[in-house]
Amino acid sequence: MKLTDIYWYLRPDIIKIEKEIENNIDARHPVLEEASSHLLKAGGKRIRPVFVLLAAQFGNYDLNTIKHVAVPLELIHMGSLVHDDVIDDAELRRGKKTIKSKWDNRVAMYTGDYIFAKAIELATYSDNPELHHILADAMVEMCIGEVEQIRDQFNWQQNFRIYLRRIRRKTALLISVSCQLGALVAGAAPEVQRQLKRYGYYVGMAFQITDDILDFVGTEKELGKPAGSDLAQGNVTLPALYAMERDRRLNYKIVSFLQQSGTEAIDMKSVIQQIKQTGAIHYSKKVADMYLNKALTALEPLPESQAKEALTQIAKYIGDRKF
Amino acid sequence: MKLTDIYWYLRPDIIKIEKEIENNIDARHPVLEEASSHLLKAGGKRIRPVFVLLAAQFGNYDLNTIKHVAVPLELIHMGSLVHDDVIDDAELRRGKKTIKSKWDNRVAMYTGDYIFAKAIELATYSDNPELHHILADAMVEMCIGEVEQIRDQFNWQQNFRIYLRRIRRKTALLISVSCQLGALVAGAAPEVQRQLKRYGYYVGMAFQITDDILDFVGTEKELGKPAGSDLAQGNVTLPALYAMERDRRLNYKIVSFLQQSGTEAIDMKSVIQQIKQTGAIHYSKKVADMYLNKALTALEPLPESQAKEALTQIAKYIGDRKF
Repeated sequence: MKLTDIYWYLRPDIIKIEKEIENNIDARHPVLEEASSHLLKAGGKRIRPVFVLLAAQFGNYDLNTIKHVAVPLELIHMGSLVHDDVIDDAELRRGKKTIKSKWDNRVAMYTGDYIFAKAIELATYSDNPELHHILADAMVEMCIGEVEQIRDQFNWQQNFRIYLRRIRRKTALLISVSCQLGALVAGAAPEVQRQLKRYGYYVGMAFQITDDILDFVGTEKELGKPAGSDLAQGNVTLPALYAMERDRRLNYKIVSFLQQSGTEAIDMKSVIQQIKQTGAIHYSKKVADMYLNKALTALEPLPESQAKEALTQIAKYIGDRKF
Repeated sequence: MKLTDIYWYLRPDIIKIEKEIENNIDARHPVLEEASSHLLKAGGKRIRPVFVLLAAQFGNYDLNTIKHVAVPLELIHMGSLVHDDVIDDAELRRGKKTIKSKWDNRVAMYTGDYIFAKAIELATYSDNPELHHILADAMVEMCIGEVEQIRDQFNWQQNFRIYLRRIRRKTALLISVSCQLGALVAGAAPEVQRQLKRYGYYVGMAFQITDDILDFVGTEKELGKPAGSDLAQGNVTLPALYAMERDRRLNYKIVSFLQQSGTEAIDMKSVIQQIKQTGAIHYSKKVADMYLNKALTALEPLPESQAKEALTQIAKYIGDRKF
């Protein structure tokens, strides 16, 4: 089963959202235009809008209201990816050249800024003040998360707590907000909003941990970038942290690499192999599953519905996802 | 006379605004904290908050309402300076090391992002939807302006029109919005808002042109960076554009320099001398004066008041300013 099969019935609306995103980053400006359309073509799962739409099904579902949340949330995500690639010095994303690599860091900085500004502009069409607060808070938290990522890059003195806090800000928060705001703009009960926010948070944590696992176990073709890219860029994720605790020789190897800020070559294939041998993948999957169970628990009190079923399926899908 | 003498009576409120800015970029996060406080200490004229306060005097002046506009506007300005320094590859601003030079481009990118996000967060405390639209539009325009600046950097095929459009987005717009929003949040009549918006636009244009003149006529001590920095960073401003039209040999010299993206050394002292000899400074001053006259005309229909007098004085001050 594909992820999109779970919410097949939302397809027409997702296409409309996609179109809105396209129309809104149409800058009528050569560099921005090209950079944005390059970004758009690179695709993406548009998972944040999907969460917004599903959450909105718990209230009065009206796409004209929902889009003022769904589109900004996806744009904020897209803008943050463009800036992330500057931080990570990343050449490829989803098999396509990143903006910072196709143009340069400066263009990436401003394309990201432009997309953020557009996101905020669109959000102003929604007249719910609570929404603006939540969105703005999320952006502040995300920014702090990115600064943490810079600080933690190539830092070998990390622990699980630092990692979890980082991915909370980096990923879980925006997915949590997507669920919460979808319910909010649809006028769902506060209790429903709260549970969906919790669900989104746990699913987001599991989603990022799974992403971090896949970076080690996926193939270059599946990932759209070489396996082990996270570590190569100095981002120490859960499997690596676990493996470093278990294997002292591997720890030494990775620390040496990080201490040189990744300037010296490392045999990533053998590092990946060694990480796997520590049981790090199995352990990380267990952590992801723990979060997924919490996500499912958050859904329990909600009334049975097509949307609840889809959210349940998505959580299960994330637990099994292979790419 | 100093600029601050014009609005001396606002001093207690400006101190409060300054304090609010300080409290709000207090990130409780090592890198951000340091970078932001470095930025704060570098000072600045805080001219945007001043315009907000003065414009608010045309309505019901209440600092608690006004600050939700004044602080975000200054933060947006500060954030854009941090990102500008990345674009301009600038080492110094106001005699202090820039964030990109004290840390690096990545820290500058994220410090700017964080400050922008904070600005938006604070603006959400104001519940006027019109305000959010105007602010968001301004941010989008500013972003496009910055992209234009990248595009135009080291580009020798420019004209006055391109220059004016660029400074409109870069400077005039935010000052215009400061005046407009100050009047808006104070509940001033729409006609008053409109005139103040016009005033701000013209004053902003004159302000930037004067800045661009000073970059050639100021001393390193006055400027806090070497004279001719704009041109050295590939930013071709009005005096240079005028001089290039007038002096063919100088044109050739500057074009060669720009074509090499500033990689080859240029005798900036002699270039500045030659620019001055074409009458470029006199011409640019005349253009600035033209905008200042328009600014004063925009004020005319407004009722006589302390604020109107101060705005008049500020326009005149900009025409005479030496640093």
